[in-house]
Amino acid sequence: MSRRRTAFFISDRTGITVEKLGRSMLSQFDGIEFNQVTLPFVDSIEKAHSAVNRINQAAMEDGRRAIVFSTLIVADIHNVIEESDALILDLFESFIVPLEDELGIQSSHAVGRPHETGIHYNERMDAVNYALNHDDGGISRELERAQIILVGVSRSGKSPTSLYLALQFGIFAANYPLVPEDFENKSLPAALKPLLPKVQGLTIQPERLAQIRAERMPNSRYASLENCRKEIQQAEALMLSANIPMLDVTTISVEEIATTLLHQTGLKR
Amino acid sequence: MSRRRTAFFISDRTGITVEKLGRSMLSQFDGIEFNQVTLPFVDSIEKAHSAVNRINQAAMEDGRRAIVFSTLIVADIHNVIEESDALILDLFESFIVPLEDELGIQSSHAVGRPHETGIHYNERMDAVNYALNHDDGGISRELERAQIILVGVSRSGKSPTSLYLALQFGIFAANYPLVPEDFENKSLPAALKPLLPKVQGLTIQPERLAQIRAERMPNSRYASLENCRKEIQQAEALMLSANIPMLDVTTISVEEIATTLLHQTGLKR
Repeated sequence: MSRRRTAFFISDRTGITVEKLGRSMLSQFDGIEFNQVTLPFVDSIEKAHSAVNRINQAAMEDGRRAIVFSTLIVADIHNVIEESDALILDLFESFIVPLEDELGIQSSHAVGRPHETGIHYNERMDAVNYALNHDDGGISRELERAQIILVGVSRSGKSPTSLYLALQFGIFAANYPLVPEDFENKSLPAALKPLLPKVQGLTIQPERLAQIRAERMPNSRYASLENCRKEIQQAEALMLSANIPMLDVTTISVEEIATTLLHQTGLKR
Repeated sequence: MSRRRTAFFISDRTGITVEKLGRSMLSQFDGIEFNQVTLPFVDSIEKAHSAVNRINQAAMEDGRRAIVFSTLIVADIHNVIEESDALILDLFESFIVPLEDELGIQSSHAVGRPHETGIHYNERMDAVNYALNHDDGGISRELERAQIILVGVSRSGKSPTSLYLALQFGIFAANYPLVPEDFENKSLPAALKPLLPKVQGLTIQPERLAQIRAERMPNSRYASLENCRKEIQQAEALMLSANIPMLDVTTISVEEIATTLLHQTGLKR
């Protein structure tokens, strides 16, 4: 008998949070093949009925009821989903009721309530544009506006981390590559020197770097293990001599790099 | 009496999911000022004890117990947090137990379990580099590799949306500005014509665009309401004549724009 199960992530908004949470829960169960389906913007009774049809259809095909992770604020919509033949794990139901008890007031049960104010949103978008303009050593103008400046060898994860810091947390992040010229001079790029307290280093194990670079430029000197080893050694020596903190990113994701940097620098999310 | 309460978001990993979920829950309660604190990487008994100290300290200062949203997989760490004087809402406890019952197997309770495979992670990073290289009409080479190409006037949200699609979903996204030259020619940029089925338009209300542009270049012609109105009118006419679907982004966040586009195009997350 197949162990295949279908899991739905259902939200009246984007579904990003419930999908992340649901995937992380399911990853705790080995040996079961989960067919994962996200249904965002389920914000009307009609869409809820159509979701129920899909849920019941999947149960028929799998020969087992589906698992539904949901975050549905409006009771009427939630009630429709409850009619399906599935295990329903609803974030709001699980948490809003104990919160109402604790706080002694009713929740507003307001769908589409903005999660952030307009001002904060504009700041995040400004931060994204800043990160784009100050990616890979581009535009020295306004470099002093950066809250953090990442350095490291090419493909050590500086760009994705800068963009993630901007998009997720509204942090003004610039990044600068360390290149052979810096190693010869045994000195940081001149633009960075007055901003040293903001500089954070990323480093990576040579084997992993060679693998990443080879995907882009197979069989190149750039991607060779020997060259990667040399560049990393020189970059680490440079960072060490300039007292720049270093984070080894070999086994961690961009989300973890970004969060670790915030944590270490004390920058506010 | 002050209604101030402290809420903690505690995770053994980055805390991003639990923070998002917690903030969204708290936003359902009007009239209470929440002091919100994220404690990521609580992955040892020592760190758990130090978190408990902070939780109890906050309760003393507020004169009410704190609220803790947590996602702690390791039972020993979770148990330490349970000793605090707080309302604990734990994601794993609320969902893992019913899942174990439903699936008939034990969860692995493994901390730091990667949420995605290495291959998927590499794809996301490739997508970020692609979005960086194909931002704002940069590099036409490999444009056909794009899964989606966003067009719209300057500052309509194309860049943040492309980057979010890449970072969050591993989608290869390019973006192209629509500029006065295109309007004069009454024609899309030549590079886009063979790729029309991948093109999606963003549009925005002139008042909002003028506001966004004024933050960057106050009192400029670029930011004037008159100019914004004209550009948007011309851009919409061009998109309409080329049969490009248009999304009005005036009141929605970059997360919502990205999710809506995926939903409309059927691109897989």
